[in-house]
This record gives sequence, C-alpha cells and structure tokens, in this order.
Amino acid sequence: MKVLLVYAHPEPRSLNGALRDVAVKELESQGHEVRVSDLYANGWKSEIDRADFPWLTPDAQLIPGAASKKAFEANALTEDVKAEIEKLLWADMLILQFPLWWFTMPAILKGWVDRVFAYGFAYGVGEHSDNRWGDRYGEGTLAGKRAMLIVTAGGWEEHYTPRGINGPIDDLLFPINHGILYYPGYEVLPPFVVYRVDRFDEAGFQSATERLRERMRTIETTPPIPYRQQNGGDYLIPSMQLRTELGDPGATGFALHLNGTDG
Amino acid sequence: MKVLLVYAHPEPRSLNGALRDVAVKELESQGHEVRVSDLYANGWKSEIDRADFPWLTPDAQLIPGAASKKAFEANALTEDVKAEIEKLLWADMLILQFPLWWFTMPAILKGWVDRVFAYGFAYGVGEHSDNRWGDRYGEGTLAGKRAMLIVTAGGWEEHYTPRGINGPIDDLLFPINHGILYYPGYEVLPPFVVYRVDRFDEAGFQSATERLRERMRTIETTPPIPYRQQNGGDYLIPSMQLRTELGDPGATGFALHLNGTDG
Repeated sequence: MKVLLVYAHPEPRSLNGALRDVAVKELESQGHEVRVSDLYANGWKSEIDRADFPWLTPDAQLIPGAASKKAFEANALTEDVKAEIEKLLWADMLILQFPLWWFTMPAILKGWVDRVFAYGFAYGVGEHSDNRWGDRYGEGTLAGKRAMLIVTAGGWEEHYTPRGINGPIDDLLFPINHGILYYPGYEVLPPFVVYRVDRFDEAGFQSATERLRERMRTIETTPPIPYRQQNGGDYLIPSMQLRTELGDPGATGFALHLNGTDG
Repeated sequence: MKVLLVYAHPEPRSLNGALRDVAVKELESQGHEVRVSDLYANGWKSEIDRADFPWLTPDAQLIPGAASKKAFEANALTEDVKAEIEKLLWADMLILQFPLWWFTMPAILKGWVDRVFAYGFAYGVGEHSDNRWGDRYGEGTLAGKRAMLIVTAGGWEEHYTPRGINGPIDDLLFPINHGILYYPGYEVLPPFVVYRVDRFDEAGFQSATERLRERMRTIETTPPIPYRQQNGGDYLIPSMQLRTELGDPGATGFALHLNGTDG
C-alpha cells in the first residue's frame, strides 16, 4: 500500500519522533511505500485566512466555505494545500500521528485539516436528494482508503476508560475518527494509543513499539470501526436521525453510530 | 462582571462578527466590563514550538509540558501568552466564540488553548494524595469563574440531536467544555449554538440575536452544566473511575460525568 503519515510534534528527538520512525520502518519492511508530512518541520501554516485566497479582492468578504469551494473548483488553492491533497489522493492509507493536547489534536494538525479538507474535496461532495444526503460518512472522495490515528497521551489509561473521568478515549476521538476521517470516506481503523508517556521507561517503550509494529503489520487486515453509512438506510433523510428501531434502546452518545449495536 | 471574549473568526464582516458585537453590546448595557481577544486581528501564533521557549539551548530537547512548566514558574512565558493569562485572571467570565469547523474549534483557537493553558496555570496544579488528584475538574486556578461557548454551525440542528448523525452537540463539545474549561476550574454554562448559518436570512438572524441577548443577560444566573467534581467523592483515586454505584446503569459515554444522572 501507499501510506501517508502526517506527523505533528515539534521535537524530532521525542517519543513521538521515535514512534514515527518505528512505524515508517515497519511499514517499509512490509513492502509499503511511505511518505511523511512533518508539519512542524515544513513550517505548516495553521490558520485559514485571506492569504489562502489571494484572488479575493480587499473589499470582498472572506466566507471560508465559499472561498474554499471556489478555490478548489478553480484549482486555485495554495501550493502547500494542493501538495497535501495530491498526497491524500496518492495514498491508500492515511495515518495522523500526534500527542493528545487538551483531549484533541495540536493546533498545527487541526490547521492541516481546516486548510486541506477543502469544500468539494472533503465536504460539500455529491448530490442531495430524497435518497442521499451528499457523499459523506462512508462515501466521498476518499472512499476505499483506510485511515488511523497514532496518539500519545500523558494521562493514565484508566482515566480514559468507559467510566474514567476524562471520558472514554473512543468518544474523545470520535469527532476526529467519525467527523474528520469517516466523513470524507475513509474506513477508520481503531486508534493506536499509548498512555502515561511522560513516565516512559525502556520497558514501556519496548512494549509500545512492539504493539505499534504489530499494528503496522496488519494495516490491510485490521477491521475498521463499524460506523454506520449515512446513505445505507439507517438514517432518515434529510433529518439524518438514526431510525428509532436501531441502536440499543436507552443508549446515548456516539456509540449509537456503530453497526452491531442494535438491541 | 468582568468578561473576556476570545473570538476566532477571520472575517469581521461575518455572522460571527455580528454576533460578537451583539454580545459585547448587551453585556456592556448590563453593566459588565468586556475585553475581547480577537485572535485573527492580533495575529495570534497557533503552534507551540521552540519560539515559545527562547531560553532553551539549541541542543536541548523540546518537551512541551516540561518547558511550559519551567517557563510559567520563571515568569518566562512569551509576552503574548502572559497577556492572555493576565486577562484570564482578570475576568470573572470567559467566552470562547468560534465557528464549528470539523466538529471542533478552528486551529487558531486550539493554538490559544495549547499555548495559554500553561503547565502550573491550567494543568499540573495542586497536590496528589490519596484524597485528591491535583486541582482539576471543578478545582484549579480558574475555580469560581464561569465560562461558556458561542458556536456557529453550518449543519442542521437535527443532525446534532441525540440520534443525529453528527453526534449530539453536547457530546461533540464535551472535550472543550469538560476537558478544556471545567478542567482548570471554570463553571461551564450550556453553550449558545446557532445552526445552518450558511442559509441565514434576516428573520433567522433576528431570532438568533434575541436568543443571544437573553443568554448575555443571564450570565450570572444561568445554572452551569452539572459536571461531577473530581475530588468530591464520586471518583476512586487514583484510578479516577466513577464509582460503580453512580451513573445510570447501562449508561455509556460522557453523560456519566453529570451529576443527577444516578439511577
């Protein structure tokens, strides 16, 4: 497979840097072709602003969605964004690797999403009718490709379990896995997460890298998170409500949007 | 009250700009004192990087948490960060206003959190013992103050309801409300959210601004989201698991961490 790893940590001599090298090496040893977008090293610009749309006249209002749509259609996105889109189209698999800061990705990686996931490319795709509501959540430009997260967290694993105080890690990552990756079509593999990384010793590192290598060896076969397809019949259109007969009765929250949870 | 509004939209002539002006005007007409941090207008730097810690020698490894701790203790954070911390200490209430991009805040606002919420200020506060696990989740530097979100979303409200495909808005915002605002001590008011903002007409705008004015008139009396306090006895220490007898039996997800949901 062709794999794009988007890496968002400011220090190459970090645990994240070491895990990235382990992942790349393992993937290459399996015959995969790997490209890395190292956002900090490349000086990635995080903010959507007028510099993204230099053709906007000074008196024109900046409406980010409308400007993104116009730029994508006219092939007038900035060169750094076009290069990332080209890599996403090239890759069969996308890996986002980052430290969990304040329960989500660092600003620089959010800025990569905000700028690269253009209107007409990652959203605003497909027709709206009585049978379908655009190509999203399981359909879209990136359908047929796989994606996963590699995440490091300072906190304890117990604090991220179903009854842990931070909230379940799968729920904390749902806005990314479902809202950013599944939305434009990716099949999303379960995340690779390591905890308590501020206290890592050599044994912890060896254990984490062995788990990571195993995940990298199985990227083609690991079953994705079974999110429900938007246009597959489970949701009413256009209200996009999960049909009342689906989902575990009484269940709440993000877990409703998984297949196989019907009561 | 003293109110700090942190504003994250690139275009002043936008719905967000109009809502900000409505909020500020209503707050001032109620006698509140308001300061605004306009992140785009101020050219806020989004990325934590070595420039945040100029005293780090070139060969020193950048460990963001450790560097943040050292800089906060030595009063050596950068001037832009120190100015924001001063405003947070000044304000009785914090409002974060932003458009919902990919189900969370824009990169520039995440970068404000990443850089301003320093170690020793917003996390890494307090003692760890058998009875308490640091001052967080209801305790901490910002305890006694209030906070709330003002959010605009392009999607339909139905898509953000408990069975809507995007996931419930309260769950999507939980990592911010609970993980970013409640964590350092804020009491968090229910968010103000407007939907389908790309199709706003004059009647929609009038309705939204009236709702917003009402919220601004009641910032001192609106009951906060009843998150459970970490050190109040509901969680085991140090595993930080919600005690098994608490929470609606069978409930999953973020809702467990609300008081008043015990079965």
